[in-house]
Amino acid sequence: MSDKEKFMQMACEIAFSKMGKTSPNPSVGAVIVKNGSVVGKGGTGVYGSDHAEVAALKDAKNSGADLNGAEIFVSLEPCSHYGKTPPCAEAIIKSGIKKVYVPILDPNPLVAGKGIRMLTDGGVEVEMMHRFSPAASDLLRGFKKYILRGRSFIINKCAVTLDGKIATSSGDSKWISSEPSRLLVHKLRSKVDAVIVGKNTFINDNPSLNIRPEDFDDDARSVFSDGNIRLSGRENFLIEQLLKAEPDPSVEPLRVLIGMPDSIAANCNFFRNDNYVIIAGERSYSKAIALNPAMKDMADKLNLFVGPDSDSDEEADFIFRVLKEKGVMHAMLEGGGGVNGAFFNSGSIDQFMYIIAPKVAGDGIPPIRGAALDKMSDSLFLHDVTTAMIGTDLLYCGYREQYNFEMM
Amino acid sequence: MSDKEKFMQMACEIAFSKMGKTSPNPSVGAVIVKNGSVVGKGGTGVYGSDHAEVAALKDAKNSGADLNGAEIFVSLEPCSHYGKTPPCAEAIIKSGIKKVYVPILDPNPLVAGKGIRMLTDGGVEVEMMHRFSPAASDLLRGFKKYILRGRSFIINKCAVTLDGKIATSSGDSKWISSEPSRLLVHKLRSKVDAVIVGKNTFINDNPSLNIRPEDFDDDARSVFSDGNIRLSGRENFLIEQLLKAEPDPSVEPLRVLIGMPDSIAANCNFFRNDNYVIIAGERSYSKAIALNPAMKDMADKLNLFVGPDSDSDEEADFIFRVLKEKGVMHAMLEGGGGVNGAFFNSGSIDQFMYIIAPKVAGDGIPPIRGAALDKMSDSLFLHDVTTAMIGTDLLYCGYREQYNFEMM
Repeated sequence: MSDKEKFMQMACEIAFSKMGKTSPNPSVGAVIVKNGSVVGKGGTGVYGSDHAEVAALKDAKNSGADLNGAEIFVSLEPCSHYGKTPPCAEAIIKSGIKKVYVPILDPNPLVAGKGIRMLTDGGVEVEMMHRFSPAASDLLRGFKKYILRGRSFIINKCAVTLDGKIATSSGDSKWISSEPSRLLVHKLRSKVDAVIVGKNTFINDNPSLNIRPEDFDDDARSVFSDGNIRLSGRENFLIEQLLKAEPDPSVEPLRVLIGMPDSIAANCNFFRNDNYVIIAGERSYSKAIALNPAMKDMADKLNLFVGPDSDSDEEADFIFRVLKEKGVMHAMLEGGGGVNGAFFNSGSIDQFMYIIAPKVAGDGIPPIRGAALDKMSDSLFLHDVTTAMIGTDLLYCGYREQYNFEMM
Repeated sequence: MSDKEKFMQMACEIAFSKMGKTSPNPSVGAVIVKNGSVVGKGGTGVYGSDHAEVAALKDAKNSGADLNGAEIFVSLEPCSHYGKTPPCAEAIIKSGIKKVYVPILDPNPLVAGKGIRMLTDGGVEVEMMHRFSPAASDLLRGFKKYILRGRSFIINKCAVTLDGKIATSSGDSKWISSEPSRLLVHKLRSKVDAVIVGKNTFINDNPSLNIRPEDFDDDARSVFSDGNIRLSGRENFLIEQLLKAEPDPSVEPLRVLIGMPDSIAANCNFFRNDNYVIIAGERSYSKAIALNPAMKDMADKLNLFVGPDSDSDEEADFIFRVLKEKGVMHAMLEGGGGVNGAFFNSGSIDQFMYIIAPKVAGDGIPPIRGAALDKMSDSLFLHDVTTAMIGTDLLYCGYREQYNFEMM
């Protein structure tokens, strides 16, 4: 790797480190270099605070660096518009920086090349680093969907047997996957804004859906030690970084329950604090209330959104409206077959992260209970597939769409 | 690789090249070396003809080599018993060879160390090459099961979607996997003695179950070009060699149909020549005859074995007795969910070769319709897992048992 590549790699690593803490802003990293040395770096802050470029500029100024003639490496085109903060392109021009390196253009139509133009108009040279376009894109797929379609990016995470079962017919699923794979799930939870489950998971598993690095011992971590895991298929920067990262419990993802519970147990982990929503269909809401009148009073105190459930597209629209209202850019769908099937049917799953355990069940519950297909050619073809052996389990990652971010 | 290792690698490669043509003998390779040069090599011939060591000795003698002080590299302990041919250990002693290299002992209780003893008693030095124990074992798992348990080694090959479907609910499965993966299946068919299908596959697909290298073009072959495919998980000599090999149509595997067809179409590929058997249960036989009286006369002309079908263990016993009578050491089970489920329930699947296509069906037919499990911990745990991306598909290989061949 050349020095330039090392600096861009560093910017992308910073971007990764901020994922899950910037929504609905894109998670970006910036590294400022003067005479071959890093003099400042920064990543996107929480929504409304500094973007990565400004954070890096402040960092450089704090250390007293003279930025005249410096260069900045940013994992995404600097913005050109006034949002919650002034344009980063302007701040860069004012700083004295003479050259900007970027791997991709901002998919936000408000920027989309205008950041680059503002920079060059301001006398700052811009160089595209195409080699890092896939890496930068891997981190920003969620932002792209969110900014262009106003919908959360859905990552369906499942642990399955080789023959495609997530549980026995009687519902037992503990544990399909190994400790290291479950540690990986906690790593991933650190990078999303929400975790979605269905009613059956809520009832059967009493899930906490939090991030618990303390649950895992050195044996589980050793599987991820440097060089132990090789990716096959497409290189994937997000996966590479996930393998290296520690789960970070500092920001808990929003817990999302799809469906109205009939009753709520006293020891319910889901309601341990206010960081949750329930999104229920009118019919399931009415049924729960009719079944258990006590739920009516309880429901009034819940973070409950009741919407249509007669049409699967309308239901999906409603779910995504609630997720948007909650600022959810990335959501991990950890559902059972039913809720996975509902998301799948409405074409809403963007990324599949399947952990395939070295087990054959012979019978049981499938990961997705979708609508019947006539032809196999009507199935969803996945793109940009990456696989990796995580100890004895296999991680399989594939996407609904090929990565395609604009470059100059 | 040292020279010694290169010679043993060569012996193992010869052993691989003979797989599918030696049953029920183990497929073995032998390389004779004098003064650092190969002076003879050979592999196991068809049953009743020369074992590898004798073939290599003859090859060396044909080229006029003086074997005094030569060394031989054999992929399995030389035999010590009189079977269809005299003991290879004896032939080696007589030849003047002074040293034998072997990676594993013969699991055949008639040999199992006695070959080594015969050699050392005869003044021939023996060196175990432990490094090649896994490679040699990969080729001889089938022989081990056959010689110790009298049963064929069953390789279940399936093409599945990521969510574990082999067809849509309406039965459409063409094609789940890509051309290169289907080429791999033809490679594998070259290495087995029989291909097993069930009634539904027989009816729906009119399968030929032959080896058709001509069906595949350069694009499909290019996926397997040197260095394109990396294995993850356990190294597996059989898989490595399969990826490199061309399908060899010179010996067609026996076609095995499990279940009695209700009728037989005129253009039925399955019956195009005599190299087939039907193994049917009494009940399904009676039903077919009752349904279609013409089948009674037809049945008398078929290679038909009718056995018990009221008890799954008895049914399995019967199927394996027929396979043994036909000299089937390795069989590839290419069934649908029903017949795969029957083999799975009786604990008869030894190796799973699943091709996971980058597709999500959401609904459809599972690869194995087995008996219901209560606990996920009762599922079958697979050992020695190897995975590889074959273009856009993923090959997943796992075994019922860990490889464990005796070494000295």
